[in-house]
Amino acid sequence: MSYQIAVLAGDGIGPEVMAEARKVLSAVEERFELAIEYSEYDIGGAAIDNHGCPLPDVTLKGCEAADAILFGSVGGPKWEHLPPNDQPERGALLPLRGHFELFCNMRPAKLHSGLEHMSPLRSDISSKGFDVLCVRELTGGIYFGKPKGRQGEGESEEAFDTMRYSRKEIRRIAKIAFEAAQGRRKKVTSVDKANVLACSVLWREVVEEVAKDFPDVELEHIYIDNATMQLLRRPNEFDVMLCSNLFGDIISDEIAMLTGSMGLLSSVSLNSKGFGLYEPAGGSAPDIAGQGIANPVAQILSAALLLRHSLKLEEAAAAIEAAVGKALSDGYLTGELLPADERVNAKTTSQMGDYIAQVI
Amino acid sequence: MSYQIAVLAGDGIGPEVMAEARKVLSAVEERFELAIEYSEYDIGGAAIDNHGCPLPDVTLKGCEAADAILFGSVGGPKWEHLPPNDQPERGALLPLRGHFELFCNMRPAKLHSGLEHMSPLRSDISSKGFDVLCVRELTGGIYFGKPKGRQGEGESEEAFDTMRYSRKEIRRIAKIAFEAAQGRRKKVTSVDKANVLACSVLWREVVEEVAKDFPDVELEHIYIDNATMQLLRRPNEFDVMLCSNLFGDIISDEIAMLTGSMGLLSSVSLNSKGFGLYEPAGGSAPDIAGQGIANPVAQILSAALLLRHSLKLEEAAAAIEAAVGKALSDGYLTGELLPADERVNAKTTSQMGDYIAQVI
Ligand SMILES: CC(C)[C@H](C(=O)O)[C@@H](O)C(=O)O
Ligand SMILES: CC(C)[C@H](C(=O)O)[C@@H](O)C(=O)O
Repeated sequence: MSYQIAVLAGDGIGPEVMAEARKVLSAVEERFELAIEYSEYDIGGAAIDNHGCPLPDVTLKGCEAADAILFGSVGGPKWEHLPPNDQPERGALLPLRGHFELFCNMRPAKLHSGLEHMSPLRSDISSKGFDVLCVRELTGGIYFGKPKGRQGEGESEEAFDTMRYSRKEIRRIAKIAFEAAQGRRKKVTSVDKANVLACSVLWREVVEEVAKDFPDVELEHIYIDNATMQLLRRPNEFDVMLCSNLFGDIISDEIAMLTGSMGLLSSVSLNSKGFGLYEPAGGSAPDIAGQGIANPVAQILSAALLLRHSLKLEEAAAAIEAAVGKALSDGYLTGELLPADERVNAKTTSQMGDYIAQVI
Repeated sequence: MSYQIAVLAGDGIGPEVMAEARKVLSAVEERFELAIEYSEYDIGGAAIDNHGCPLPDVTLKGCEAADAILFGSVGGPKWEHLPPNDQPERGALLPLRGHFELFCNMRPAKLHSGLEHMSPLRSDISSKGFDVLCVRELTGGIYFGKPKGRQGEGESEEAFDTMRYSRKEIRRIAKIAFEAAQGRRKKVTSVDKANVLACSVLWREVVEEVAKDFPDVELEHIYIDNATMQLLRRPNEFDVMLCSNLFGDIISDEIAMLTGSMGLLSSVSLNSKGFGLYEPAGGSAPDIAGQGIANPVAQILSAALLLRHSLKLEEAAAAIEAAVGKALSDGYLTGELLPADERVNAKTTSQMGDYIAQVI
């Protein structure tokens, strides 16, 4: 069995942390006698510089030929003056999601024991820990809904976006949330704004229908404004949060920040055939790029998720996760995870990768 | 000079806390020799019970005849089975905002010194304090944009909402944010999702234009997902946050929760003529209604804001705020603001009102 991975390292810290993920993948290939082929393509700002657009055809074709995409991160100050449509984030990520119909985005966020002090929450709240999986619809809603544009003149000129969801779209993402909850703490919290949005009223209806097929899973509904609040008071009471595209964007970032260790979080975006894009939760962090201090763990864990979800190599995925777990509990930490007075013991990007690869 | 206030106490704790606001207003009338007339009207669930709809005509007419609306809170489990359009929150608040074109919503949230421990944030973050004013556009965007509805059959049935903003709408709310910033720490953070939404691209353009007339105010733009995160790490770095309707809903609630003392926060919704609706930030809190333990401070501060913004009675408004400040610093606190082991010293709803009225 041979596998094809399209590697899109991107901008900022992307290439640095990707190099460590590749190290770890090599170790896994050796141990499990796998044959993985990697093809590297430009994406984001790098692609703008080399090809004049953030998602060149050659990159798209390369991704089509692969079994999965390992994505780094895109964007940076160099490309911020460009019109929104041509910028790295919008011009690369959104079309990739749309082209491959990656409708299902899963962003797990767990407060690691031993790293509770990283959370911006009060210690009596963070000491209870939390482990939330945000299941976000990724190819519908107000991101892709038509019509979207501008009309009119002068002060009456107006812009418009359309939020749009069909029963089908809601049902397929809701099912995934309930299935995920069955393998976890059996609770789904569906986030909406049903007191204002027609889309949310339909969302609630369909989620209720889907819930009937999962009698062992508890379902609750919460308004987006209230969700933002309750996550601050009692994050430990949430298990799976099911969200539309826009609300999932907001909620998943809030939860990620609540862990205080974004450098450990990765995310999966899947289509109905199991093809997926795997990426760290943090951005391209241009401020620390090139210094060798970025945390490669999120990128390494993205590789583990890729092995699990797209290549169905559960054992290899688990081996990476175990190695990362060992590194963290052995105190192998990059600077941002250490208190200021312990930063002298910080590991570099490549020391982290070496250690994790060696454990494997 | 005689003034007319329409009093809409509503449901849950609404009537209890409104009684205390009335006490305090009486004390102010006496001290400043004012003649204020009050007319009470049913709203929300109470109006559904008595008139069959959440915003009866008589209530709307009464509000039209008044100089301002003092609003309590609406909603509760009794009315949750109703279709969304008929529920108290949606059926009362949204039409009131629309009818009177209350486009400008201001929600101040300050971490009171001495109450830092109430914040769900880590103590090294909350100890720095914060004082944020959320300026939210309240009659546009995806709340009121047309078309909104459903079409199609079976699994293809879809729902849609339209986010829509004109230059005019953006300009008038942006101006208010910059004016407010001039009287504060001179910084406006405009919240959008310009990497995805056409409305946000126009929003950014117009906000930049408005900024030119306020060279003394610093302007920064932030994406809604990033705003949700940065508020957790460094709330003290924000001054005025300028938001569209939906983003303001989310951001203002997040900031309110970050103070940890929602019972102290109130909000103003104004139209271009200075007519306004004044309400506490918290909801109707049906779980504690009728027990005499609800915190009336937010409702009392709503009355102060009404005196200031709609009746232009600055001295009277300041007197209420000073009296509230004195009550809090004298340790006059309701139970939810006290640590569990000090709750025996909690003041009741009416003790709080009495004390504040007496200080005046
Ligand atoms: C870059 C941006 C378009 C994107 C989104 O909003 O989906 C990002 O915030 C994310 O969450 O992956
Ligand atoms: C009740 C609801 C419609 C309302 C809103 O979303 O505006 C509320 O959340 C608020 O913020 O005043």
